[in-house]
Amino acid sequence: MQTLGLALMGTGRMAHVYGPKINAHPGLRLEVIYNPRMTSAEKAAGQYGGCAMDDLDAVLANPKVDAVVIATPTDTHVDYIEAAARAGKPIYCEKPLDQSLERVDRAMAALDAHPVPFMLGFNRRFDPDNAALRAAVKRGEVGRLTMLMSWSREPSPPPIDYVRASGGYFVDATIHDIDLICWIAGERPVEVMAAGSCMFDARIGAEGDFDMTMTTLRMPSGALVHINNSRSCAYGFDQRMEVFGDKGMVQTLNHRDDNLVRWDKTRTVAREPLKHFFLERYDQSFYNALDEFHAAVTTERNPSASAQDGRAALAIALACSQSAKTGSAIKPDYEQCLRE
Amino acid sequence: MQTLGLALMGTGRMAHVYGPKINAHPGLRLEVIYNPRMTSAEKAAGQYGGCAMDDLDAVLANPKVDAVVIATPTDTHVDYIEAAARAGKPIYCEKPLDQSLERVDRAMAALDAHPVPFMLGFNRRFDPDNAALRAAVKRGEVGRLTMLMSWSREPSPPPIDYVRASGGYFVDATIHDIDLICWIAGERPVEVMAAGSCMFDARIGAEGDFDMTMTTLRMPSGALVHINNSRSCAYGFDQRMEVFGDKGMVQTLNHRDDNLVRWDKTRTVAREPLKHFFLERYDQSFYNALDEFHAAVTTERNPSASAQDGRAALAIALACSQSAKTGSAIKPDYEQCLRE
Amino acid sequence: MQTLGLALMGTGRMAHVYGPKINAHPGLRLEVIYNPRMTSAEKAAGQYGGCAMDDLDAVLANPKVDAVVIATPTDTHVDYIEAAARAGKPIYCEKPLDQSLERVDRAMAALDAHPVPFMLGFNRRFDPDNAALRAAVKRGEVGRLTMLMSWSREPSPPPIDYVRASGGYFVDATIHDIDLICWIAGERPVEVMAAGSCMFDARIGAEGDFDMTMTTLRMPSGALVHINNSRSCAYGFDQRMEVFGDKGMVQTLNHRDDNLVRWDKTRTVAREPLKHFFLERYDQSFYNALDEFHAAVTTERNPSASAQDGRAALAIALACSQSAKTGSAIKPDYEQCLRE
Amino acid sequence: MQTLGLALMGTGRMAHVYGPKINAHPGLRLEVIYNPRMTSAEKAAGQYGGCAMDDLDAVLANPKVDAVVIATPTDTHVDYIEAAARAGKPIYCEKPLDQSLERVDRAMAALDAHPVPFMLGFNRRFDPDNAALRAAVKRGEVGRLTMLMSWSREPSPPPIDYVRASGGYFVDATIHDIDLICWIAGERPVEVMAAGSCMFDARIGAEGDFDMTMTTLRMPSGALVHINNSRSCAYGFDQRMEVFGDKGMVQTLNHRDDNLVRWDKTRTVAREPLKHFFLERYDQSFYNALDEFHAAVTTERNPSASAQDGRAALAIALACSQSAKTGSAIKPDYEQCLRE
Repeated sequence: MQTLGLALMGTGRMAHVYGPKINAHPGLRLEVIYNPRMTSAEKAAGQYGGCAMDDLDAVLANPKVDAVVIATPTDTHVDYIEAAARAGKPIYCEKPLDQSLERVDRAMAALDAHPVPFMLGFNRRFDPDNAALRAAVKRGEVGRLTMLMSWSREPSPPPIDYVRASGGYFVDATIHDIDLICWIAGERPVEVMAAGSCMFDARIGAEGDFDMTMTTLRMPSGALVHINNSRSCAYGFDQRMEVFGDKGMVQTLNHRDDNLVRWDKTRTVAREPLKHFFLERYDQSFYNALDEFHAAVTTERNPSASAQDGRAALAIALACSQSAKTGSAIKPDYEQCLRE
Repeated sequence: MQTLGLALMGTGRMAHVYGPKINAHPGLRLEVIYNPRMTSAEKAAGQYGGCAMDDLDAVLANPKVDAVVIATPTDTHVDYIEAAARAGKPIYCEKPLDQSLERVDRAMAALDAHPVPFMLGFNRRFDPDNAALRAAVKRGEVGRLTMLMSWSREPSPPPIDYVRASGGYFVDATIHDIDLICWIAGERPVEVMAAGSCMFDARIGAEGDFDMTMTTLRMPSGALVHINNSRSCAYGFDQRMEVFGDKGMVQTLNHRDDNLVRWDKTRTVAREPLKHFFLERYDQSFYNALDEFHAAVTTERNPSASAQDGRAALAIALACSQSAKTGSAIKPDYEQCLRE
Repeated sequence: MQTLGLALMGTGRMAHVYGPKINAHPGLRLEVIYNPRMTSAEKAAGQYGGCAMDDLDAVLANPKVDAVVIATPTDTHVDYIEAAARAGKPIYCEKPLDQSLERVDRAMAALDAHPVPFMLGFNRRFDPDNAALRAAVKRGEVGRLTMLMSWSREPSPPPIDYVRASGGYFVDATIHDIDLICWIAGERPVEVMAAGSCMFDARIGAEGDFDMTMTTLRMPSGALVHINNSRSCAYGFDQRMEVFGDKGMVQTLNHRDDNLVRWDKTRTVAREPLKHFFLERYDQSFYNALDEFHAAVTTERNPSASAQDGRAALAIALACSQSAKTGSAIKPDYEQCLRE
Repeated sequence: MQTLGLALMGTGRMAHVYGPKINAHPGLRLEVIYNPRMTSAEKAAGQYGGCAMDDLDAVLANPKVDAVVIATPTDTHVDYIEAAARAGKPIYCEKPLDQSLERVDRAMAALDAHPVPFMLGFNRRFDPDNAALRAAVKRGEVGRLTMLMSWSREPSPPPIDYVRASGGYFVDATIHDIDLICWIAGERPVEVMAAGSCMFDARIGAEGDFDMTMTTLRMPSGALVHINNSRSCAYGFDQRMEVFGDKGMVQTLNHRDDNLVRWDKTRTVAREPLKHFFLERYDQSFYNALDEFHAAVTTERNPSASAQDGRAALAIALACSQSAKTGSAIKPDYEQCLRE
């Protein structure tokens, strides 16, 4: 197996997700951990290995760095993409690309000018259940797709600072469901209608954001999509999909810490509450996403989740935000994506 | 138990549902079967008993007729309601009241002028599972309600003549989900957004109607509602509800002809396909609805499903139709319902 | 539908089960309620109708009595069977026939001498799920039967007086599983091995009886059977079957008061506790058993559960008792059943 | 983490299970692969690394070998245990210890004379579900244990040569269920009753062995145990446990390749067939078992599954064989185990 030396850009929450996965992958080698603040880089390098660096040019000039994994704050993604593309380094970038279509288009222009393999971290595509669901659909198990549904309910609202910087609930969270649905359906919506409310955390409403939303997408084939999101869920991180076609339906199940079934005086055939949150539920998917990146780079093929996929998902999420504010159906702006 | 003598108005499909249920109820007595065509009345009387009559005035003047069950074509409901109200007879009327708000308001005016016990046949309220769901919600099992979902998928599209006369998919079918949701939530939407498509039966689309819809309701409390309807479903009559609140979730399960679990070379823990259609799935609910009517009339209390409930459900369904056509959120017209 | 006039013999617990079912059946008419103590008969007649009688000869001579339903104490069954057979009355007798094979053989001799339609009240055969299970097996869904399992766990131990008079746990309770298994398998065991223990109610052990047992039956075909019984069960009346063959497996599910699925902070996909006990769980089966009796008598065919079935089940249960005491495999004594 | 250098003894089926798991474990290093035939050792070393050796004394004298993993044919286990114990090397030995209690006692004498950490490969204890089941039971979730059940049904009969060398179905397969049950219950049976049959593969019967068995164990506490084994199962490798106590019940669920739920014209809520066989189902457990061995050796504590556990399980399995032949309850011979 060909080994890729990686520079891990960033030392925040997502960097702590990728560090151990890089170390566990037999084809990846953590060469550099980069942070413009050297003390942060050194601390992370102490945990996961690799060489701590605070000089971007030096990182990208390092001949042992075969590719970069961008796990920095969202508003810096585009800058690092531009720099890495110019340096000719394959790029794995945590989602979202950015919160603005304009800046995303700048990143895409850079990738056009300096074509390097690029993969966006839509990790849920690499969850074994979601992948099995798509495979079943592609095999024709449910026939022609007519109605698709996706639930994503988080265990509890994030800190209000996170909400403020998130770009809004649709851009921050619904974007995952949007990407999954488009990837499974094999098409992107021509129109969206969304409704939002705030019933769990009044501070979120005070920021003009929602903590629960219902989104409808209309696909070019006529298929309809429902996405159900909530910032709070008493029983854990509720993640379900349901694909209904003219021959039948396939659903995915939630995950728990154990596979026991309990019977007692108050409840029967009961299961544990769900996995707590995305790190627990989608742990394997992050590893699989890096594996996809490794396989694509080493075999010189395009990785599964492209910059165009990221731009489209953002355009759809922004349309949802606008629909929820205006009460009208909105057509997503795909104009810049036509070169695909 | 006090016995009520009933006049069954009509001899069509729904009359054949109510006939045997009336006979099975210890407190109901089938006194008259009415149809303006005497041969139809006589045929039905031969099946279910009672006296065949074709003269409306005579039916309503009959001292043995304590109440009427209206199971005639929808566009005649209002006329019979007016006549029966004038005659002082308690009324059970199959849903919908009518397809037009103007005519519904005429019926309501008649009921105002001649107050008699009136019950609309929203039979799904009387399904034991739906009733248990509402009771669980009222007990506070899921806390404050935030998101409610209702699925109603029919096994196969109806004849095109039925579609033409149906008032559209929202008025014909979604109205059931709408009533259930309002009854469980204890509130009515301030705004609706709906999307429709036609992927199963092109003849339905040619009539300007939909054969699959996704509907979003916004409640005054902030709660959001998703209703999922389809005129076709490979595995039977799919009827599910999911009520999600800040303390948890309660769902209802589908019904089948047997309770066996099958394991073989291709599938495990498998169950039979679902009950075929509404007569099979909701058989008990029709009996229970008549039982509610009997109990309300004999104890002089209001039955569960009022004319106002029927008018509101129609107003919501019409708003859904309009939203699906315009792509805008629509406020239902409740004006006439304020006297409640 | 031909109507049968019935004499209900007995006014105890089981008579209170059969009374309302007889009244609800359109082809049965409760003509007489018999108890040698007239006040008891009169009290029951006050509840269910029929003529109270305390004179057995008069009951059997009554021309309006077309058949008898014996629901008296077990040790009087054989006497009433003999009397009714002599009088030429078709007989429905609550199980068990008796606790002694000698007395059962006396009843069978009477039925030989005076052949009348005879049905034993193995009501669980008439439970819709058990009937569907057998039908699936007969259709060949699981192929050749190899291993059959039956669970019957009661919610709580009976009063100690009941235990004393019960004939032992195998004769009182396991006999139901034995009959079901033989009926489904279409064969009777050549050998049984059983083990018993007493862990729930020490008073039962003090009587020399068990409150939990595990029984193994070996069938002539080679098929093996496991029966799992307990006098106590925290979550209700646990009733399950599992039939495993060379093509797959079919299981039956437990019943509950509602069909809701609950999700909260401590448990997910949880259901209610099970139906409390046999009256709740098998309510429909008693009605269906009377329906089978009615159908068999009016069409002059043999009812489903014969006296021979009852004798065989008793012989097997007695062999289980003996095996549990001796620790050896025991062959049931079928000698008297050969005439079948 | 302290690293242990391992000698993997044997190159057969189980060695191919352990080789990759040793390589994947951060604290284990595959130092030597031993087979008395050098070509076999070299071939395996080519696959998994390590130094191929055919000289047992040299292996045990190798200072880089900190411990041995014995995965040779069962009838050689005792010889290798004696040699490794004399050499002072910690031992992980694939189950069973041996098929004869006499030879097992020889191994145990060697371990008494030369005490080294010893762990028997009862891998199913290290399956996460079985471990969670035991933990739930130890937490008191079901109260006092009264009835325990274990199902183990294999997808298809093994080659007849395997059957001939297996020591019989109870010793080869039931021994796993026996060990799990004793480990969960915290006690060992005082008496066993077993029944066997041969309905799937007549060649197995011709060897005097069974291809399906039902086993009953009686525990000192009074608890009863049912074990259900089959050499054939149409829907895969059926692995279930059910622990019933005075407060409730806990069950474990089967595993599948995906977590999808399918609905179509013939079946609803259906799942895939089960994992094919033990390598697929218990893959993780082998890794976890080696992890337990590593943790025990490096922290100088006793590993979970002792030689005494192995001897007791064999004694119980042999008692089952005898019971199935004689039709009598048999007391297992634990005499040699008293020093525990």
